[in-house]
Amino acid sequence: MKTLEFWFEFGSTYSYLSAMRIDALAGTYGISTKWMPFLLGPIFKSFGWRTSPFEIYKQKGDYMWRDVERRASRFGLPFRRLDKGAVQVFPQNSLLAARIAIVGLRTDWGRDFCRGVYHAQFAEGRNIADPDLLFELARRSGAKSEELGAAVSDENKAVLRAQTKQAMSLGIFGAPSFVFGEELFWGDDRLEDALLFATGAG
Amino acid sequence: MKTLEFWFEFGSTYSYLSAMRIDALAGTYGISTKWMPFLLGPIFKSFGWRTSPFEIYKQKGDYMWRDVERRASRFGLPFRRLDKGAVQVFPQNSLLAARIAIVGLRTDWGRDFCRGVYHAQFAEGRNIADPDLLFELARRSGAKSEELGAAVSDENKAVLRAQTKQAMSLGIFGAPSFVFGEELFWGDDRLEDALLFATGAG
Repeated sequence: MKTLEFWFEFGSTYSYLSAMRIDALAGTYGISTKWMPFLLGPIFKSFGWRTSPFEIYKQKGDYMWRDVERRASRFGLPFRRLDKGAVQVFPQNSLLAARIAIVGLRTDWGRDFCRGVYHAQFAEGRNIADPDLLFELARRSGAKSEELGAAVSDENKAVLRAQTKQAMSLGIFGAPSFVFGEELFWGDDRLEDALLFATGAG
Repeated sequence: MKTLEFWFEFGSTYSYLSAMRIDALAGTYGISTKWMPFLLGPIFKSFGWRTSPFEIYKQKGDYMWRDVERRASRFGLPFRRLDKGAVQVFPQNSLLAARIAIVGLRTDWGRDFCRGVYHAQFAEGRNIADPDLLFELARRSGAKSEELGAAVSDENKAVLRAQTKQAMSLGIFGAPSFVFGEELFWGDDRLEDALLFATGAG
């Protein structure tokens, strides 16, 4: 079966939309997926940005919240706008979530954990930098204690750094991104295009 | 009949895609369109950008050319990548084209002129800052000489400036954008969503 790489960042609203729908959708195309968490921070830093462009450029940010709200509604996904009187900051610190995901995606609880983190953040408005929340979500998905220890090991930190560097070398500049062979697709709104391309029909 | 505003910039690749397909597509939704040329330059300047973000951020630019190439192919539109050994610069100076379009869109030759400018630029790789090319395209679309004179009048220059300010006041930060009432949609990939929203079904 052909495999589409799904590159995502936990702090990204549009990655939330893709994470919640990619596996069911990919199934209808007969495509499998490989989930690749990475960090946008170092990539944004290379552009000279100290935070998300949605924070730097207010018009883009205002538009993004409304656009994601519309798309979430279309997909039947709950969505809490973190810009509307919520206590949470945006973008949230996604470092520990990504480190745990790296470990979980090697075994059977990774995807459920990832969806749990997105739901906690964008449906419930919770703080995904909170280790207690993340460890609880991981355990609920099936993580063992020693796996949570492995998530914060130096070795695992290096794996996440390497994965972020790999994203940059693939030309990735935002999230979500989808990669099939040499072909890059950026944005939740390109998910169907990427799947179609992967089937060989695109 | 309900009317969707189509805000476009002549230098914009994604605006080319929308300009070539919006009127036929809108017809299938039972929606009419109002074409609103504006300049992205002053908006980019307000963000601290001296040129297109596709020029400032190489990864975004590389991606954009490939993405537009893929979409043009899907829509059956010719497309010349201006980044691939072409002599033309990007983004091109679209000031005179926009001024002529303002005049033409008040009468019956405006849309044909706009599509002609986009075709000359993105199908033929021509320089749309060239007044001879623009006046020729306008005449071919049905412009009279006095209308071409009106395009470069101080009065008309002020109209384009006001239209660009109106774009900013609507929260527009890129092109193409589509506006229906209070609702803003950004990008050629939101054209169908905007039309659906305008029908009242979205």
